[in-house]
Amino acid sequence: MNKNKITFADIAKYTNFSKTTISRYFNNPDSLTLENQEIIAKALVDLDYRENKLAKVFANGKSEFVGIIVPNLYLHYYAEMLNQILNTYEKFGYKFLVFVSNNNEETERKYIRELLAYKIEGMIILSHTISSEELASYDIPIVVIEREDKYVNSVNTDNYLGAVQGTTLLFKNKCDVLLHINSMVSKDVPAYGRIQGFQDICRKHNIKYELIIKELEHSQQEINQCMLEVYEYVKKKYPNQKKGLFLSNDTYANSMLNIIFREYGTLPDEYRIIGFDDSPIAIQAIMPISTVAQQIDKLAYEAMEILVIQMNERKKRCPKPQTELIHKNIIPILIRRKTTD
Amino acid sequence: MNKNKITFADIAKYTNFSKTTISRYFNNPDSLTLENQEIIAKALVDLDYRENKLAKVFANGKSEFVGIIVPNLYLHYYAEMLNQILNTYEKFGYKFLVFVSNNNEETERKYIRELLAYKIEGMIILSHTISSEELASYDIPIVVIEREDKYVNSVNTDNYLGAVQGTTLLFKNKCDVLLHINSMVSKDVPAYGRIQGFQDICRKHNIKYELIIKELEHSQQEINQCMLEVYEYVKKKYPNQKKGLFLSNDTYANSMLNIIFREYGTLPDEYRIIGFDDSPIAIQAIMPISTVAQQIDKLAYEAMEILVIQMNERKKRCPKPQTELIHKNIIPILIRRKTTD
Repeated sequence: MNKNKITFADIAKYTNFSKTTISRYFNNPDSLTLENQEIIAKALVDLDYRENKLAKVFANGKSEFVGIIVPNLYLHYYAEMLNQILNTYEKFGYKFLVFVSNNNEETERKYIRELLAYKIEGMIILSHTISSEELASYDIPIVVIEREDKYVNSVNTDNYLGAVQGTTLLFKNKCDVLLHINSMVSKDVPAYGRIQGFQDICRKHNIKYELIIKELEHSQQEINQCMLEVYEYVKKKYPNQKKGLFLSNDTYANSMLNIIFREYGTLPDEYRIIGFDDSPIAIQAIMPISTVAQQIDKLAYEAMEILVIQMNERKKRCPKPQTELIHKNIIPILIRRKTTD
Repeated sequence: MNKNKITFADIAKYTNFSKTTISRYFNNPDSLTLENQEIIAKALVDLDYRENKLAKVFANGKSEFVGIIVPNLYLHYYAEMLNQILNTYEKFGYKFLVFVSNNNEETERKYIRELLAYKIEGMIILSHTISSEELASYDIPIVVIEREDKYVNSVNTDNYLGAVQGTTLLFKNKCDVLLHINSMVSKDVPAYGRIQGFQDICRKHNIKYELIIKELEHSQQEINQCMLEVYEYVKKKYPNQKKGLFLSNDTYANSMLNIIFREYGTLPDEYRIIGFDDSPIAIQAIMPISTVAQQIDKLAYEAMEILVIQMNERKKRCPKPQTELIHKNIIPILIRRKTTD
């Protein structure tokens, strides 16, 4: 017998069920008792040369696939998030179909159609291009991470708290003026909390501060050029004052540190620096950079946990619709290294 | 009608075929003409609420899935390789099921079983734990990248040529002694070519050289500690000599550069440094680091191209077995930055 081509007759013979029963298993499994479903499922495995999970999926719609869309894997943040999501296989058993969208909205829609065609049970979305309203319309369990999340479940770092931690550390370092350097962040994304947290702490302590918002690109040369401009502006505007620089990520913080370190051969007391994310660059830098760490392992795990609850609900005979969206915040961790006291 | 639960009767009615014909389509599709297979496949799509590619896969075994196993996504090299492989979707249309093995042999075997159960058409393996002999025994199209490849197809950077390029540059920089710092590399992995290329060029030009092989770990602190030891050893052994340091990756090169830069406030003429890989750290460093770039986009694309040819062959009625393994070498590119003349 060609073990990859078993017929209904083979399965019927093996299980002592009728061919009609086997046909019902594939076409209307709920008409069989769970016990008989299991007997047939087991027979499929026994008979098949290799277990054919797709046969089971076709029968019961439980693909155990989760779709992931990441905007890129160039940024360590996304690579590590993908890593942590993939590692949840050990806990939850879901397999992952992964797409990189490169921030192209049409590409991303095509990927979602493809994922739905493969009967994924749920999606985790890290890209920003498609609105949560549209995502919700796909009528499939979805969790998004660190992006606009009005109409879908989400898991985010508590960015506001992270900014409070970082800004407070600079304040305690007895800086005369605090500066927050960030790219243009929309008010409806979680990372906007970094700007709010910075401003609130500066106002609370009544300390001089300035928000420097730049159009920042991903190329290292553009980032370096931009940080050089910020450095010269700050140096000129606040001479002989202790400047606390809170940068919105470690790549920017490293670029700024390099500029200052090359000029002074060290980081002078006049400058304190803190980044965000705890990327590898923060410890690979010429001086280990203080930073606000995102707990990427927890973000990934919580996202899957929320998703699994939704996916399990869908497998019930009478699934209850989700009545309230879940937005979970993960606490960031302040890491003090050499660029602050 | 519940569009997600179509029955053989529904399909029979829609196509004017008998239920027996529909059953044969699912259980023994080759017994139908290609034309009738297509009519039924089309009916499945028409009847289904959403296109159900799994139904087609179940019928014809063409899952369009490729399995990928990466050892980790912590190293930028693997993240970028995964990125480039995923991007080949636009060209070849294959979808990717991705696993991270964390160098655990048993875990990796479990993942491969899981992938086979989902009827993947081929695999790309980047991890090192399972021998190519075992991989070949799975009897499925496989391409490995930058690892032991005796019994399977592979795509590798021409590591020997990369070492020749890097070492020659240091020689032209008029160094008195050349040092290659590497971890323990097995002779059967492609990266061993870096050691051979270095030695051959040093011997050819009759220049003093030393090979420094260290047990290097992934933690940044351990790398820094190890590089500090190497630095002190080299400094003491070769005083007043111009030292050309060829490090086996940019992470090590950056760590070494930081140690020297912190001591001198610059990179003195006495030291020239070149890394390998062109990782982001090479341009984020305190000084942009000269390096040997791997063309990761080309490595990924060639791997998929070789795999697609094998997978297409398997879809033919009488597939020809592969008679000769393909081992493709991709040329690396020397990038001259500030740490060499």
